[in-house]
Amino acid sequence: MQTYIHSAPLQLESGESLRKLEIAYHTFGTLSPTHDNVVWVCHALTANSDVADWWPHTVETGCFLDPDRWFVVCANIIGSSYGSTGPLSLNPATGAPYYGDFPPLTIRDMVAAHRILADALGIDRIHALVGSSVGGFQAIEWVVSQPERFDRLILIATDAFASPWTIAIDETQRMAIEADPTFGQPTPDAGAKGLAAARAIGLLTYRGAAGYNLTQTDSPQQTQAGSLIPREQRRPCTYQQYQGLKLIRRYNAYSYHTILNAFDTHDVGRNRGGREKALAAIECPTIVIGITTDMIFPPADMRRLAAEIPAAHYCEIRSEFGHDGFLVEHRQLNSLLLDFI
Amino acid sequence: MQTYIHSAPLQLESGESLRKLEIAYHTFGTLSPTHDNVVWVCHALTANSDVADWWPHTVETGCFLDPDRWFVVCANIIGSSYGSTGPLSLNPATGAPYYGDFPPLTIRDMVAAHRILADALGIDRIHALVGSSVGGFQAIEWVVSQPERFDRLILIATDAFASPWTIAIDETQRMAIEADPTFGQPTPDAGAKGLAAARAIGLLTYRGAAGYNLTQTDSPQQTQAGSLIPREQRRPCTYQQYQGLKLIRRYNAYSYHTILNAFDTHDVGRNRGGREKALAAIECPTIVIGITTDMIFPPADMRRLAAEIPAAHYCEIRSEFGHDGFLVEHRQLNSLLLDFI
Repeated sequence: MQTYIHSAPLQLESGESLRKLEIAYHTFGTLSPTHDNVVWVCHALTANSDVADWWPHTVETGCFLDPDRWFVVCANIIGSSYGSTGPLSLNPATGAPYYGDFPPLTIRDMVAAHRILADALGIDRIHALVGSSVGGFQAIEWVVSQPERFDRLILIATDAFASPWTIAIDETQRMAIEADPTFGQPTPDAGAKGLAAARAIGLLTYRGAAGYNLTQTDSPQQTQAGSLIPREQRRPCTYQQYQGLKLIRRYNAYSYHTILNAFDTHDVGRNRGGREKALAAIECPTIVIGITTDMIFPPADMRRLAAEIPAAHYCEIRSEFGHDGFLVEHRQLNSLLLDFI
Repeated sequence: MQTYIHSAPLQLESGESLRKLEIAYHTFGTLSPTHDNVVWVCHALTANSDVADWWPHTVETGCFLDPDRWFVVCANIIGSSYGSTGPLSLNPATGAPYYGDFPPLTIRDMVAAHRILADALGIDRIHALVGSSVGGFQAIEWVVSQPERFDRLILIATDAFASPWTIAIDETQRMAIEADPTFGQPTPDAGAKGLAAARAIGLLTYRGAAGYNLTQTDSPQQTQAGSLIPREQRRPCTYQQYQGLKLIRRYNAYSYHTILNAFDTHDVGRNRGGREKALAAIECPTIVIGITTDMIFPPADMRRLAAEIPAAHYCEIRSEFGHDGFLVEHRQLNSLLLDFI
C-alpha cells in the first residue's frame, strides 16, 4: 500500500472540506512508457485498495486484471478506514480523531479523490475503469464527469443511482448502528454491536435465499433429532454472528455510517438534467454485467442500465450466490472480461 | 376479542411450563348446529386474533372467510402481546411481568394452545385451516399432529420448516434487538430502538426491490435538483423509520424476540422421522399458494412444498409486493380460495 498526501484541502459537495487529504492506494504491474495500460478498479463498501486480496482470481496472470499486462490501480475510498482520510483520521482543527464529526461525503467526493490521485500519478487516459457494486457507483460517476478520459467501462452489479430499495437497505443498517447507544462516543469501537447487526443485514442482501440454503444448512442428524438445536449451534445463526464479529474487528461504525450515507447520494443525473442525459454522455464501449440471483441490483435493473448507456452491451453471470456472485464467480467473470478488456 | 382462561398449566417442549395460560381469540360468523362450518386462521408474527383488521377483504360477505357462511376463529399466538400469555403477562411465580424470563416457545407449543382452545370451544372437526407466512408454520404443524381433524388445508407463502435463509433473517433481527442494551431491562419498552431496527429488517424481506421502487421513490423534482436531499426527507428512509416507530408503539421487543426464536424451531419432521414422512401423513385436500416476488418463501420452495404433500396442488399469485403480496392481492387470493374452500 502507498499513500498519496495531497497538498491542498478537498472541497466537498456539502460545502465542508477535508483540510488534510490522504489517499491510500495499491498498484499492480508496471505502467507502460506511453501510459496506455492503466486499469482502474473502484472498490465497494468495506473493501480496501488491495484488489488482489478481496477479489480472488482477478489480479493474476491470465486473468482480466493480469499484472503482466496491465497497470492496475485501486484507491481506498475516502471515509473508509483503510488508509485514506476517514472518521478515524485526525481532524486538523482539533488534533483528535473526527469520529462522529467527520463531514458527510458523496460519491462525487469519492470520485474527486480518485481524480486527484490519477493526476498525481501522471495518469491521463485510463484504458479501462472497473466498478462492481458501489464501486460501480464511483465508476459510472467518474466516466460521466470525464468521458474523454476512458477507453472502456466495466460495470458489474451496480446502477446509475441509488434506488429506493438500496436506500431502504442502507437506512435499515443505519437504524441498527444507531440502536447501539455507544455510537457517538469518541472511541474507535463505538457502535460495534450495532455495526455487527448492520453487517448481518448487509449479508442477507448480498447472499439471498439460495446462498444461505446452499451453505448454512444444519446437519440432518441435528435437524431430524427430537431435541431442539440451541441457537448458538445453528449454522445460519453462528454465520451471521461470526460475520458481524469479523467486521467489527477490522472496521468501524463511523466509516460504515459515513459511506452508507454517501451511497445514498448517488445519482448521475443530479444537477446534469437527469439520468438519461448524463448517461448519454458516456462515449466509451461499456460492458454491463448482472447476476441472475442479485437481489440488490436485479438483472432487470441491470438490463435497463445497459440500455441507457450508448455503447453498452449486457451480459449475465449465473450464480446461486446473489450479489456476492461477483466475488465468487471469477471463472465466468474472467471469461467475459478477458474478451472485453 | 374474547379470552379463554385455561384451568391447567401448559407444558412446553422446552420442559418448562406456563402455569397460567390465557388465549385471546376472535370469532366471526355463527357456529352451525352440526359444527361443520369452522374455518381456523393462524396469524403471523406481530398480527393479532382480529383477522378482519389485519387481512383486508377476507372476512367479508362474498370473500373466502365470509362470516355469513363460515365460523371463523383466530387465536392470538402465545408469546404475543395481543391478549394471550406472553412476556408482558404476570409471572405467577413472582407476581411481576416475565419480560426476559419468559420461557422459550416452539411452533408446537403455539399449536398446543390452539388445540386447547378448539377443544374448549367444542370444535371437533375443522372445515378449513388457513395459515399464511409463519401462520402457515402453525397450520402445517397442527395438521401433521392431528390429520383427522381437518377437511381442507390452505397454505400461503410458508413452509414445512424454517430454512437457513429464514433463520438468518431472524438471527439478524435478534442481533439488532440485542444491539440495544436496554433489551433485558424489566420494562415494557426495553429494546425499543433495537426492535424498530428489527422491524425495518423484516420489512425489507417482506417487500423486496419492486415493492420499494414502486412506492418509495423520491419526487423527480427533488432527485434531479442540484442539491442533496437530507436523509430525513427521503421516502425510503422515512418509511423505514416510520414503520419501526409504528411497531414499537404497538408491540414489545420481548414478544418479538420470543416469537422469532419459536419460528426457528419449526420443522414438521423433527422427532417424526423426517419431513417427507411427516408431510405424507396429511390426508386432506391442500392448496399451496406462492407469490411470484416473495423472497422469504420463493416460488421454487412453495412448489417443492406442494409436491411433498399428498393431496396438494400449487397456485401462484402475481404480485410486485413480495411476501406482503398475501396481504395486498386479496382479489387473486379470494378468486383462488372461494373455489377451494
